[in-house]
Amino acid sequence: MLAAISWPAPPRGYGPWEQVAFNVADGMRRRGLDVTLFATGNSHFAGKLASVVPVGLNEDPALNGEVFTALHIGELFRRASEFDLINNHFDWKPLTYALALDAPPMVTTVHGFSSPQILAAYYAGARRSFYCSISNADRDPGLDYLATTYNGIDPRQFTFNERPGEYLCFLGRFHPEKGTHLAIEIAKRAGVRLKIAAIPHDDAYFRELIAPQIDGDRVQFLGAVEREARNELLSKALAIVHMTTRPERFGLTMIEAMACGTPVLGAAMGSIPEIVVDGVTGFLCANVDEAVAKVPLLSSLDRAACRAHVAAEFSIERMIDRYLGAFSTALQLRMPPAPSEEKLRTRQHDWWDRPMAYTEIPPKPKNLGFS
Amino acid sequence: MLAAISWPAPPRGYGPWEQVAFNVADGMRRRGLDVTLFATGNSHFAGKLASVVPVGLNEDPALNGEVFTALHIGELFRRASEFDLINNHFDWKPLTYALALDAPPMVTTVHGFSSPQILAAYYAGARRSFYCSISNADRDPGLDYLATTYNGIDPRQFTFNERPGEYLCFLGRFHPEKGTHLAIEIAKRAGVRLKIAAIPHDDAYFRELIAPQIDGDRVQFLGAVEREARNELLSKALAIVHMTTRPERFGLTMIEAMACGTPVLGAAMGSIPEIVVDGVTGFLCANVDEAVAKVPLLSSLDRAACRAHVAAEFSIERMIDRYLGAFSTALQLRMPPAPSEEKLRTRQHDWWDRPMAYTEIPPKPKNLGFS
Repeated sequence: MLAAISWPAPPRGYGPWEQVAFNVADGMRRRGLDVTLFATGNSHFAGKLASVVPVGLNEDPALNGEVFTALHIGELFRRASEFDLINNHFDWKPLTYALALDAPPMVTTVHGFSSPQILAAYYAGARRSFYCSISNADRDPGLDYLATTYNGIDPRQFTFNERPGEYLCFLGRFHPEKGTHLAIEIAKRAGVRLKIAAIPHDDAYFRELIAPQIDGDRVQFLGAVEREARNELLSKALAIVHMTTRPERFGLTMIEAMACGTPVLGAAMGSIPEIVVDGVTGFLCANVDEAVAKVPLLSSLDRAACRAHVAAEFSIERMIDRYLGAFSTALQLRMPPAPSEEKLRTRQHDWWDRPMAYTEIPPKPKNLGFS
Repeated sequence: MLAAISWPAPPRGYGPWEQVAFNVADGMRRRGLDVTLFATGNSHFAGKLASVVPVGLNEDPALNGEVFTALHIGELFRRASEFDLINNHFDWKPLTYALALDAPPMVTTVHGFSSPQILAAYYAGARRSFYCSISNADRDPGLDYLATTYNGIDPRQFTFNERPGEYLCFLGRFHPEKGTHLAIEIAKRAGVRLKIAAIPHDDAYFRELIAPQIDGDRVQFLGAVEREARNELLSKALAIVHMTTRPERFGLTMIEAMACGTPVLGAAMGSIPEIVVDGVTGFLCANVDEAVAKVPLLSSLDRAACRAHVAAEFSIERMIDRYLGAFSTALQLRMPPAPSEEKLRTRQHDWWDRPMAYTEIPPKPKNLGFS
């Protein structure tokens, strides 16, 4: 199991890729599998831990990310023959190592395409690795997928609160695609407080669109909250706002919120319709106006239904079931089948092509207007 | 033969790593060896060319450097079993791939340590790859080396001019470590013209220290010159100024200048004392004052001796001899011997260590004062 190394596994605060890799590794271990987790040295894993980088790259700026990334991946492949199967949670780079090896079957969980340009590596790697997506929405039309392995959490780590809170909350990172600015607009127009817990990402966005609106009262910024505080923040909220401006890939914070009984006010695109049952565990909104209109209805939702939905669909055990199914198929097939002609035709961004237009800051969204 | 992919091999203008990889590949081919050169698709090689990236990464900003670097390296290792030996001219990253493979012997030419942090990869890779340095000066004390394989050029590609020119010239890139500012100071104080041909690198350095001094007369900036213009610039010069502020690793432009008969006014550190015969093919200077004092003596040097020195020591054929010796030893030993206790003790920057202080902009040099 190859984890990302920006943070330890499990992470103390933010670190969704590390969290998922840990959850899969630990879930497999609990089912009796012999699991080696490649993660940072300050990770905690009751199975076998293999580390070449002492702490998370984001925890020590003196560590060279490129060097340790390569050494971390290289170390897994140096030991590849020891394993029956490799599950890669560390994006596309390991694919370029795997291409060279007559090693065990490999399953890569695609946690997201950071830019269309990395598709070149995924297309090349398709000869060697199976792919799992983390939602049906987050699939590239040029790739074949073995399964959708929705991320899972342990609901017991989140405190269920049957009583609706009075504030909205936003969790994640400050980036226009996560729609912090839209959460602020919705809260202000609906006349409810907003509590923001987020890590820095796009500094200009934070400085220009977010910081001026933080007043410590109607719009509060709590910094980056860790376990306990995160649980409390989610558990006592009226709803979590997840009005992304670009299709969400999965959205771990939504299932964490629902595990606390807290519904989701989310954008009707990307993975969100697969995660939120509209009118039951939250509301799917086409734009800010719709979201504002739904705020008064949030307290009428059955918070127990939110938690039950997570337990049934997004628990670690359900995730492990899905992964075991995928691994079992991969072990049978050994190598991925050749892609169909149709898949090859839809590969817009093959090695020799220029990438399509893609902006780091999304343009003014069509449905979700900037305020 | 794994070339860098910032530029085609051979490059049309700047591109020393690509040039050397091409020179070695082509020299080996001419000696009858079966050589496959992994380089950009717009490279020209009379042997076998293998490419996954269409053009140089610096030639098309739309190409994702990280992705294509990994695919380029991955492609070599995918085919590794086809080859008797791998010669890596593409820095440390291929070492992390090689660690995983039971592939042919590998010789890595270390073209320079861009930061102490990449030593972690070289130390790890020492289990798997032999190393060649490009000068005796440019050796890390924690590594064993198979040979010093000085870079070589074909003197016939440079026009010998027996008559000393009247201007000094500077070739390379705009970075404080290359000492463009010192070349300007020396030319001004010696009362001779300076012609600068360089590519951008450190923009602030260029803007603040270089651009204000360019007047089109005493200090001329020609842009980045390619083959013909480069040859003419070097051939008609009084001398090339190479007053680096950090130890030079090799310094290809110095042997290109000497091939034209043009001597070198160089800093007495790094590789320069190995390349320039003091008082014969140029002058080794401890500081700017010394360099200014040597300018009047430059026209008295025997320009034929400069060219003869290159032909004897720094031709491609001499370089090929050196590489063949190194390859032959690598093929005999197959894998590098374990490093001595002493080498291990001197590894200052092992995986778990923090890097030592290292500044991108070198501090005010001790011997070579900023003006």
